[in-house]
Amino acid sequence: VLEPLGPDATLLLIDLQQAIDDPSWAAAGPRNNPEAEHTVLRLLERWRSTGRPIVHIRHDSREPASSYRPGQPGNAFKPGLAPRGEETVIAKRAGSAFVGTALDTLLRTRRGPVVVAGVITNNSVESTVRAAGDLRYRVLLVEDGCFTFARRDRSGHLRTAQEVHDLSLANLDGEYCTVVTAAEILRAAEPVA
Amino acid sequence: VLEPLGPDATLLLIDLQQAIDDPSWAAAGPRNNPEAEHTVLRLLERWRSTGRPIVHIRHDSREPASSYRPGQPGNAFKPGLAPRGEETVIAKRAGSAFVGTALDTLLRTRRGPVVVAGVITNNSVESTVRAAGDLRYRVLLVEDGCFTFARRDRSGHLRTAQEVHDLSLANLDGEYCTVVTAAEILRAAEPVA
Repeated sequence: VLEPLGPDATLLLIDLQQAIDDPSWAAAGPRNNPEAEHTVLRLLERWRSTGRPIVHIRHDSREPASSYRPGQPGNAFKPGLAPRGEETVIAKRAGSAFVGTALDTLLRTRRGPVVVAGVITNNSVESTVRAAGDLRYRVLLVEDGCFTFARRDRSGHLRTAQEVHDLSLANLDGEYCTVVTAAEILRAAEPVA
Repeated sequence: VLEPLGPDATLLLIDLQQAIDDPSWAAAGPRNNPEAEHTVLRLLERWRSTGRPIVHIRHDSREPASSYRPGQPGNAFKPGLAPRGEETVIAKRAGSAFVGTALDTLLRTRRGPVVVAGVITNNSVESTVRAAGDLRYRVLLVEDGCFTFARRDRSGHLRTAQEVHDLSLANLDGEYCTVVTAAEILRAAEPVA
C-alpha cells in the first residue's frame, strides 16, 4: 500500500501536447491506454482541489519536421490538460525534463515524491524517470497515466504499444521508480489537513 | 556507412565488472551476446593501438546486497578488460555515468563521438546513452558489445535477453544514438594519420 502523499508531492506531466495525436506516431500500430488523458485529468483535479504543486513539461522540439515544434499547432497542450493559474510550465528540448531546465532546482525545494504521467512511456517519460531516479528523487510512475505506440524492435519484430509500454515499465520499476496505478495515487492523495 | 572516427573518438565502457557474472542476474533466463566481452576486447585493442581515449566506468553500488558494491570481489573489472596505464576510470553510483561524475566535463574537451559498450543494455548502458544524447553528444552504441538478461514485463510476459536488448536498442536508435556493430566501428577506427 502506498504511503499517504504529503502536501508537496508534485504532479509532473510530460509532453501532453496536441502533437501526440499526429497520425505519424501510430505508423507502426495504435497507442495503448486510450483512457490515459481522462486518468491524468482526474489526477490534475485532485492536485488542484488539494493545493498540491503541479508541473507541466512542454516539449519544444528542435526538429524542423516535428509536430512538437514551437509555432506548430501541436505544440499546444491537449484540450482539458492545459496549465491553469500559477501552475508551473517548464519548456524542454531534450528527452529528459531535467536537461537544460530548472526542474531539479525546483524539485529540490520539496520533500514529497514526484508523481509522473504523460507521453511517451518509452521516450521522454522514461528518460525523465531515469534521470529523476538517478538524482535520488522518490518517483511514482502512473502506469495508466502514460501511453506509447507500437514499434519494431532491433531484430524487426513488431511490438504492440502495450508490449513496448510493459517492458519500459519493467526496466524502470524498482530501479528508478515505483510503478503505481492512478487509483493508488488517488487513494494516497487525500486532502491535506 | 559510418564516417571515419577522429583521433578523439572516446571508447566508453560501462560496468564491465565481475559482478555481472553473478548467477542472480540470470534468474529469469540467460544473457544474450555471449561473445560481447571478446568483442569489447577487440575495440579496446584498437583504441589502444591507435592511441584514442578510453574511459572505463566502474559501478560502485550503494546497495548493501549488490555484488557491485565496493569491497566485494564483483566490483573488480572483468579479466582482460581492466584499465591500463593512463586510461581514465570514473566511478559512478547511479545508472547514468553522467550523474555525480566528471564525465561531461571530460567529454566536453573532445570533438569526437562517444562509442558505448558494456552492461546491461537496458539499465546503465541505456541511462548513459539517453543522458549523452540529451546532452547532444554524438553517440555510437555497439549492439554486439552490450548484453542483458531475460526479464518479465509489467504484464507478466517473460522476455528473453535478446528481446529485452532489441527493444532497448529500438528505443534509443535515432533518438539518443546511432546503433552500430563492432565491425562497423573497427572499419571506421583506422589508425590516426
